[in-house]
Amino acid sequence: MKHRPLILVTNDDGINAPGLKALVEVARELGDVIVVAPDSPQSGQGHAITLKDPLRLKKVKLFEGLEAWECSGTPVDCVKLGKHIVLHQREADLCVSGINHGSNASINILYSGTMSAAMEASLEGINSIGFSLLDYSWDADFEQAKPFIRQIMEHVLEHGIQHSRLLNVNIPNLPTEEIKGIRICRQAEARWIERYVESIDPRGQKYYWLTGDFMNQDHDEDTDVWALENGYLSVVPSGHDLTSYKAIAPLKSLEKTLLTMNDE
Amino acid sequence: MKHRPLILVTNDDGINAPGLKALVEVARELGDVIVVAPDSPQSGQGHAITLKDPLRLKKVKLFEGLEAWECSGTPVDCVKLGKHIVLHQREADLCVSGINHGSNASINILYSGTMSAAMEASLEGINSIGFSLLDYSWDADFEQAKPFIRQIMEHVLEHGIQHSRLLNVNIPNLPTEEIKGIRICRQAEARWIERYVESIDPRGQKYYWLTGDFMNQDHDEDTDVWALENGYLSVVPSGHDLTSYKAIAPLKSLEKTLLTMNDE
Repeated sequence: MKHRPLILVTNDDGINAPGLKALVEVARELGDVIVVAPDSPQSGQGHAITLKDPLRLKKVKLFEGLEAWECSGTPVDCVKLGKHIVLHQREADLCVSGINHGSNASINILYSGTMSAAMEASLEGINSIGFSLLDYSWDADFEQAKPFIRQIMEHVLEHGIQHSRLLNVNIPNLPTEEIKGIRICRQAEARWIERYVESIDPRGQKYYWLTGDFMNQDHDEDTDVWALENGYLSVVPSGHDLTSYKAIAPLKSLEKTLLTMNDE
Repeated sequence: MKHRPLILVTNDDGINAPGLKALVEVARELGDVIVVAPDSPQSGQGHAITLKDPLRLKKVKLFEGLEAWECSGTPVDCVKLGKHIVLHQREADLCVSGINHGSNASINILYSGTMSAAMEASLEGINSIGFSLLDYSWDADFEQAKPFIRQIMEHVLEHGIQHSRLLNVNIPNLPTEEIKGIRICRQAEARWIERYVESIDPRGQKYYWLTGDFMNQDHDEDTDVWALENGYLSVVPSGHDLTSYKAIAPLKSLEKTLLTMNDE
């Protein structure tokens, strides 16, 4: 890469999140950085976009010497506004999202604002990486993750991502020297065992809070969950095609059913 | 199927949407129906879940003789609350979502609350179908779609969905007799060409509204977009694994980079 790369940085925990600050610190060592991030936490927003409300963008001075904007919308809105309004004619060489406070391995990619932001950038043709640290606390220590994040960003800036434009990177919550290395993985098959905590508000109305436990159902050694449980960073190259190809052939009889119906 | 099936019905356009009413009318011919739908329109909510706010459920009398609940959350919240609170010990045989006002073909599955609700039910182990009619208007005529919807629901109730638990069904906006039949398809590769309409509010603050045009980039004849453009209903069996399997091998060199780093 000849020129100094332009890197768009976003997240879902909001522009004040320590994880974003850590990611900006790494990104600015490698290129010119522009930050567009939500003005409030947006965890669990998945691929939501704002259609009913107008969106706001505000330039903020949060990162010494860097252009940064906070956006009233979801993480996906941040990337869309970042591309069309903030970057405008400039082309980003890379989009990085995170560092998320908590895991986005396995099916968590579906619910994750961090990963949806990165996926949105990939749909726009920008190589993108979502980073998550397996520590949900606001005071998580992101220092340990930085050398790995830098290496992965450098790799993508130099080599691109063949057959994909999106990486889902999860980092075990371990000191740098205890991380065994990196594994290129597939997304584990897992589910959430969920329940609702029920309560009554002061007006006597019932309400519910979601809670639950993640349950891995996939014990092969080529998954992201396996890598993380065994002290490795997991990297899952990801796409946006949800087609179940194997299910196409067995469904073909349905084509006949409907033709018959119309012939009657 | 021996017993009368239990069918959970939801959507993303809200509990008052005409598309939901049409879907309920078909579903109740085939089984016992329970409705859990958002109390307000939730288009574009993707796989968002509500984490920051408590959720409310309210029993409503909207459908003669049917149990129906409105929920304060997203479409995915409706399915989770539907399963854990409303259905509780009862097991749904099928979840249907829609009929959405507008297309959810191709990458629209990512942004769609309709499809995310159906996907959530599939993650819970319930066979699920999302239905969308290619007519965005609130006054869309859903009658023409009903015979097809019934056939597809009957097929899934009888045969299940091999290798998948989720169908993304889109219906062209044509009179029944002009619909040529059904095609089992893959998701077309497409993108949105987007822009923001910029305006100034009465307080002098700039704001943005998202708008854009869908652009198909995939001209093969096995895609959902092709089917719809050629007068067929499209049925895409879908999953939740976003791994780009082809991208795994070329990335393996990254594993070595990091091992070297730790050895230094």
